[in-house]
Amino acid sequence: MNQIKIFCPATVANLSCGFDVLGLCLEGIGDEMIIRKCEQKGLRITKITGADLPLETEKNVAGVAGMALLNHLDLEFGFELEIHKKIKAGSGIGSSSASAAGIVVGINEILGNPLSRKELISFAMEGEFLASGSYHADNVAPAILGGFTLVRGYDPLEVIKINSPKDIYLTIIHPYIEVKTSEARSILPKEIPLKTAITQWGNLGGFICGLYTEDYGLMSRCLQDVVAEPYRKNLIPEFDTIKKTALENGALGCGISGSGPSIFAMSKGKDTAENVANQMKQIYTKTGIGFDVYVSKVCDMGVKFV
Amino acid sequence: MNQIKIFCPATVANLSCGFDVLGLCLEGIGDEMIIRKCEQKGLRITKITGADLPLETEKNVAGVAGMALLNHLDLEFGFELEIHKKIKAGSGIGSSSASAAGIVVGINEILGNPLSRKELISFAMEGEFLASGSYHADNVAPAILGGFTLVRGYDPLEVIKINSPKDIYLTIIHPYIEVKTSEARSILPKEIPLKTAITQWGNLGGFICGLYTEDYGLMSRCLQDVVAEPYRKNLIPEFDTIKKTALENGALGCGISGSGPSIFAMSKGKDTAENVANQMKQIYTKTGIGFDVYVSKVCDMGVKFV
Repeated sequence: MNQIKIFCPATVANLSCGFDVLGLCLEGIGDEMIIRKCEQKGLRITKITGADLPLETEKNVAGVAGMALLNHLDLEFGFELEIHKKIKAGSGIGSSSASAAGIVVGINEILGNPLSRKELISFAMEGEFLASGSYHADNVAPAILGGFTLVRGYDPLEVIKINSPKDIYLTIIHPYIEVKTSEARSILPKEIPLKTAITQWGNLGGFICGLYTEDYGLMSRCLQDVVAEPYRKNLIPEFDTIKKTALENGALGCGISGSGPSIFAMSKGKDTAENVANQMKQIYTKTGIGFDVYVSKVCDMGVKFV
Repeated sequence: MNQIKIFCPATVANLSCGFDVLGLCLEGIGDEMIIRKCEQKGLRITKITGADLPLETEKNVAGVAGMALLNHLDLEFGFELEIHKKIKAGSGIGSSSASAAGIVVGINEILGNPLSRKELISFAMEGEFLASGSYHADNVAPAILGGFTLVRGYDPLEVIKINSPKDIYLTIIHPYIEVKTSEARSILPKEIPLKTAITQWGNLGGFICGLYTEDYGLMSRCLQDVVAEPYRKNLIPEFDTIKKTALENGALGCGISGSGPSIFAMSKGKDTAENVANQMKQIYTKTGIGFDVYVSKVCDMGVKFV
């Protein structure tokens, strides 16, 4: 195989109770990439559409992630890359992660999969480091593995793919406002009450039990964030109204996607998720702020070949 | 049925990564109780062996838990109770919980089980309140439900019974020293770094994944306590030596049982657990401090009828 076209999925990190550890992969929202094997060593980005991103490999998230993998593999040939961005940068649904995940899975596939998907995560994290200045896997892990993932820890990196109940749909609203990841970080307290931490990890534990036993009621009761949401929600206009309305309309839970500004609602079944989408649209139309709304199943595959 | 003899199991709470939320039920260690239906309303404790505990219902953990249930049920008759304590008070393996759990499950059984086991937990918690001054379920939940349990939260109370892999054995060493629960509580900081909390809930999440997927390696990597153990271990002589030796001898993990002074090691298979028990004995014999050592499977049933 010399050329491959791939779908690089958007992802939702944190999921209310799983701050910095949980994430899931979306099905219908993502970028496209075309990767071509070529004689010249290294990785060259030949085309980018949909976003104003640098073509220089060392300044591009996909470029850096791809080169981290190529340096590890030490090949006698190289690759060319076209990036067609659909996920808006800074939306909070893993735009940089999609690029970083896509390139490493794509190159690995062309090579006949010398590495496992789990092994690819650390290379994609190099791209995340370029984008955000920190090594984190809460978006690249679900983008690469699909489904629901837990980043157990980083020393060494361990990611667990959790069971993904079939009937879960996400509604995402992306308001066109900027929430800088650095601001979303700095707004959080460095220390939290032990009692608050216990509440959070009780809910995280319960949510994971809910995923394995496919107990939607339990998942719903656990989708609470007592750590980040109380601070970060103030950065997102109408967050409380969106959340209240989503829950009143049958969503299992609703919270901030990653560090925002996107808001996710999780529902059982497509009808509920679409109803929630309509409600979200009505609320945001009144604000005058531009927005996108998506409805998507959880994608159990991660990066896909088109 | 007018009389019942029951086995009231010891339990291990916290389990390193699950501070205040996780617990498990032991098989071979526990008290015995005999409960008799009688004409006179209320609950009378007629005999206690094995411990110097009050016979007055309102001062006795089992008495208070039993009366909480009887007041709820509003019966035209009452019960008599004999308590034969085997679990030492203050050992850190749920002595008071065993009594509180036993009486409520026993009375419920005599009555033909009007309540579910999960519904009984809140009544047993009244006994825990008498014993410790706080309502907590991390020992009574596994004593009543058996296996591994997660207390998701208290508002309202929700307890989840997690899958219990068949091959898990516990080694428990109970050093004859006093660790007051109040001291073990006050020694902990009221606030913890957010980073520390994330490490803890990553491990808790991973451990629960390990229980469902029966991945012993994953469970082992997750059995870490960065919250309570660094403080509480100083209250237990030779804790570090016991832990290091248990891990070197194949235990999956080792930590403080509840708030101590008992130390638990978790192993895959009975042989490893017994080897760890022998190593623990050797270490503690040198200290001159008296101790008991137990090896037990996880009991998936909770309170049992003899």
